[in-house]
Amino acid sequence: MHEALKEAKKAEAKDEVPIGAVVVCNDKIIARSHNLTETLTDVTAHAEMQAITSAENTIGGKFLEECTLYVTLEPCVMCAGACFWSRFKKIVYGAKDLKRGASLIKRNIYHPKSEVIGGILEKECGEIVTAFFKKKRDLKL
Amino acid sequence: MHEALKEAKKAEAKDEVPIGAVVVCNDKIIARSHNLTETLTDVTAHAEMQAITSAENTIGGKFLEECTLYVTLEPCVMCAGACFWSRFKKIVYGAKDLKRGASLIKRNIYHPKSEVIGGILEKECGEIVTAFFKKKRDLKL
Repeated sequence: MHEALKEAKKAEAKDEVPIGAVVVCNDKIIARSHNLTETLTDVTAHAEMQAITSAENTIGGKFLEECTLYVTLEPCVMCAGACFWSRFKKIVYGAKDLKRGASLIKRNIYHPKSEVIGGILEKECGEIVTAFFKKKRDLKL
Repeated sequence: MHEALKEAKKAEAKDEVPIGAVVVCNDKIIARSHNLTETLTDVTAHAEMQAITSAENTIGGKFLEECTLYVTLEPCVMCAGACFWSRFKKIVYGAKDLKRGASLIKRNIYHPKSEVIGGILEKECGEIVTAFFKKKRDLKL
């Protein structure tokens, strides 16, 4: 999660909503990414989406059944849906997303074989986003 | 929807699950795409995801509030989540996806301002997918 946080900080440096992700397979990081929705003018460019695309390219296969996704913020519905298709073994997130987190939806939308763990480095992962939006709001005042 | 079906047929020709999409803005098609998950080894390469990325690049903005998405099959949760972020004015799909369609999830996951219409060219849009998987199954026998 520390590596995912490093990615979140890269996003922050680009004035992107600071969310970062890494994919780990056999104790090795095979993909790392951060949110680039503004830079790419693309709402699909969430950290998780890019991490999935990148990891699948690295392993040369569509299923990440041996992989763990670490992401600083709870995946949204789009990203949880992508996690479903990629069949992660494990999904570990930092801060909860109380507005758009996939756990707000009643039915499980992750893949049934994926273990989902939240709350890792919750404080740090949450604060980097809260601070980002606070700064944005302060600038508008 | 006929244009989206044309895209689905392009996917079929590549042995991809035959799903196609177009994005229309001011009566003009600004993006067209078809499922490329096998070709790109990327579970995120659904027709809708690519259509969104492409449309946002074309208009140079993240929000498709004046646009309509036409897609031959009901969007999955990932794609409906992406539709949420891109704020389509209207989403029109052909066949229902009874296994993975976003409408199976109880809470609305499209953007609240997006009108969602299903059942357009339902028969044609459904049959192209059914036939694709039937052919796949027959080949396995």
